[in-house]
Amino acid sequence: MFRYEGRGVEPLDEAALETITRGWRRLISEIGVRFDHPEALRRFAEAGQSVEGHVVRLDPDFVLEQIGRAPRSFTLLARNPARDVVVSEHNAAFLPAQGAPFVRRDGVRRDATFADFGDLVRIAQHLDVIDSPGVLPCEPNDRPLDSRHLDMAEALYLLSDKPVMGAQISAEAALDSIAMARIALRHRLDDDGAIVSCNINVNSPLRYDDRMLEALLAHAEAGSAIVVTPFLLMGAMAPVTIPAALVQQLAEALAGIALVQLVRPGCPVVLGSFLSTTDMKNGSPSFGGPESMIGLLASGQLARGLGLPWRSGGGALTASPVADAQAAWEGAFTMTAAMQAGANLILHAIGWLEGGLTVGWEKLAVDVDILQTLRVAQTPLVVDEESLAYDAHDEVRQGGHFLGAAHTLERFRDCFYRPILATTENFERWTRNGSLDAAARAGAVADGWLAAYEQPSLDDAVAAELGDYVTRRRLELGD
Amino acid sequence: MFRYEGRGVEPLDEAALETITRGWRRLISEIGVRFDHPEALRRFAEAGQSVEGHVVRLDPDFVLEQIGRAPRSFTLLARNPARDVVVSEHNAAFLPAQGAPFVRRDGVRRDATFADFGDLVRIAQHLDVIDSPGVLPCEPNDRPLDSRHLDMAEALYLLSDKPVMGAQISAEAALDSIAMARIALRHRLDDDGAIVSCNINVNSPLRYDDRMLEALLAHAEAGSAIVVTPFLLMGAMAPVTIPAALVQQLAEALAGIALVQLVRPGCPVVLGSFLSTTDMKNGSPSFGGPESMIGLLASGQLARGLGLPWRSGGGALTASPVADAQAAWEGAFTMTAAMQAGANLILHAIGWLEGGLTVGWEKLAVDVDILQTLRVAQTPLVVDEESLAYDAHDEVRQGGHFLGAAHTLERFRDCFYRPILATTENFERWTRNGSLDAAARAGAVADGWLAAYEQPSLDDAVAAELGDYVTRRRLELGD
Repeated sequence: MFRYEGRGVEPLDEAALETITRGWRRLISEIGVRFDHPEALRRFAEAGQSVEGHVVRLDPDFVLEQIGRAPRSFTLLARNPARDVVVSEHNAAFLPAQGAPFVRRDGVRRDATFADFGDLVRIAQHLDVIDSPGVLPCEPNDRPLDSRHLDMAEALYLLSDKPVMGAQISAEAALDSIAMARIALRHRLDDDGAIVSCNINVNSPLRYDDRMLEALLAHAEAGSAIVVTPFLLMGAMAPVTIPAALVQQLAEALAGIALVQLVRPGCPVVLGSFLSTTDMKNGSPSFGGPESMIGLLASGQLARGLGLPWRSGGGALTASPVADAQAAWEGAFTMTAAMQAGANLILHAIGWLEGGLTVGWEKLAVDVDILQTLRVAQTPLVVDEESLAYDAHDEVRQGGHFLGAAHTLERFRDCFYRPILATTENFERWTRNGSLDAAARAGAVADGWLAAYEQPSLDDAVAAELGDYVTRRRLELGD
Repeated sequence: MFRYEGRGVEPLDEAALETITRGWRRLISEIGVRFDHPEALRRFAEAGQSVEGHVVRLDPDFVLEQIGRAPRSFTLLARNPARDVVVSEHNAAFLPAQGAPFVRRDGVRRDATFADFGDLVRIAQHLDVIDSPGVLPCEPNDRPLDSRHLDMAEALYLLSDKPVMGAQISAEAALDSIAMARIALRHRLDDDGAIVSCNINVNSPLRYDDRMLEALLAHAEAGSAIVVTPFLLMGAMAPVTIPAALVQQLAEALAGIALVQLVRPGCPVVLGSFLSTTDMKNGSPSFGGPESMIGLLASGQLARGLGLPWRSGGGALTASPVADAQAAWEGAFTMTAAMQAGANLILHAIGWLEGGLTVGWEKLAVDVDILQTLRVAQTPLVVDEESLAYDAHDEVRQGGHFLGAAHTLERFRDCFYRPILATTENFERWTRNGSLDAAARAGAVADGWLAAYEQPSLDDAVAAELGDYVTRRRLELGD
């Protein structure tokens, strides 16, 4: 976990906050949110909300009352208690890119496999700056569709001892995730926190579909930590003006969080944000633009105002298909905005390419340098007498250099952040070493992480029980 | 010019400000600054400062008194008054990379030529986000060393009507710059502002050499706008702790600015900053790291506290030799920090590669996207009833999309920043178009600017007089 020392940047003044508050209250109460699941509709109706067909019009004060039941902070429990993650407004937790059907590795883009999945979990386990492998660091296309969530959950618990996320594609998959979490974290069941978490995407605008809802309901019953994420590409799933998207984001997320609290008061939740733009020339998603940066900063301020931890997208988002300059600046901008906005859960922190369709081996190393740089850059500067290094100036005086000064020699090993991928080689040396740009050097960095990975221990009985569970359920699912 | 609507980020608290103030006062008064020029030493001695050999120990209160004579804002006059640049704490002006001996163009790194110089001036003239071509957008290695400053100044005035900078390599070159500015800007001589500006680098630590000083003295006599820039790579020219570098930066810059004010009270000046790190593994400069970002933010706060406009380095600085991911994230980070720090003059905003040794054709387009993105991202968000787009939500409701909504159709052309280089093409289309990464696409963007360039008109008599001046002086200089 990264700890924020300062408060996030807050771009909205009082008048803007009031306007946005008025906006989501009107949207949620007058236009309402569609919930395509009878239990959700029943819950809202029983709570006195207006239900017409599938559309629920919510009383904003009722929504705030439900939101008020959610904890301001909570713990994501890990197999290894030392890996627990506290989700709170003071922290940021980072996860790798999630959900990509393709990988780009060794210069080739291809269908992602279960082997890739395992390697990505290993990398997430190995890297100190990554707090959880998530649930789906890539899609294992070579495993049967109906049961691959079982393969993935088993691999997550075998290969990582960090907190893992659970499936949200159906109630059945969600229940499997919860059951397997109860096996893998059997020693943590009495601890305060969530043994599994999940991310529920809204079918923006203003709609929750049946599969997401059945997963939400299953996870809420079990007390999983639930991230509720409006998926807003302005121009497609939201209007093109940032305030309208912010209002919609709140209306959607708060409606979903209210449902979670109706099902299980006090259930840990995270206000999700995935806010970017549509390229209006071709209708494609675009990332790293100024509108998403502004939107992220405002999202963080709004979430803090509601007392909810929040998730941001980015991550290091980009539309680029390769780990090139575009991928780096778009990724750097989204990650900068997410951290300056004080995001508490950051999915897609490393590896994301091509609007999330591809996880890029080379992009992993680019993003780790970006993430580590930003983490150090947010460290408060200590200014005291010692930091002024007067003795060093007294030693070097005018026109000399500090390379050999005692002050430098005592500190040179760790005085500056040391990049993992960036080069400072001069041109001649860089040329002798093959004229490799950052992308061409990056694959070897990720390979090095894999080589350095150490598999965490797992109790044999637990491993066997997980295996038995997977075997039994796979048969039941007919794969 | 870009106008800042907010105030820069300010990382230093009162105690830190006091410590840094104590630091520069002690450094400037106890260790002092070396000035390798008799007139500088004479000026300081006459003003009652302690001069021992070449080292001047300055009374900090005397320095502040001199600083207080400098204007808080001033105008850089252009041939075309519509291109004037106001340097003040409320604005940022952007210049391309300066001083590179090499260019990287069409994939090849080679000695820069006078033809490259002209093309870079044309691009600086063409781009709205660039306020001045500077003085040396690359080194024209194919022109004689002693007289090339004449060729450059003539080309700057012929090809651009934006404010230009003058030479600082010697008194003679500085005087030529001033004389040519008086010819080219003859219609502006009675206007309030500086007809030429220059950047004086300190030979850090704590030393001004004779050539920089003779140029500084010549420009100060003439009332040029003078940027005084400590050149601090922490670990080499400054201690490895950021506060020590900040203290040194102030001591050096304020000593130089005090000299300018002694020569010509009220002369426009800019507090310069070029603050980065040394890679302690190999002694090479490194850029875009967290220490330079923190240093930039603190530098801006300190400059504003002194009431001086300030220059930052970055720019889009990088150690990378090519326009790759490293170049983009390092450039994005230095530019982000410079703008969040409220820098008023930003050299090296586009094109810089390889620690400034190379100006990269491909990097130009990368950096323009970075710069334009940051400019839009710093635009204050308007939140009002109209921005909430309630009608659009009322039209689209649940589960639809906004691509065809009236609200979208009215705004789609300019609702989002449109990148010049970033692609949102899907993978199939991107592959059909040649699988070109951003660097491979970027050269064509810069070529397009060249093709779109329009040469500004210049009075024939002025052009002839500039030509005569160059011819006469070239003969005198023996080239």
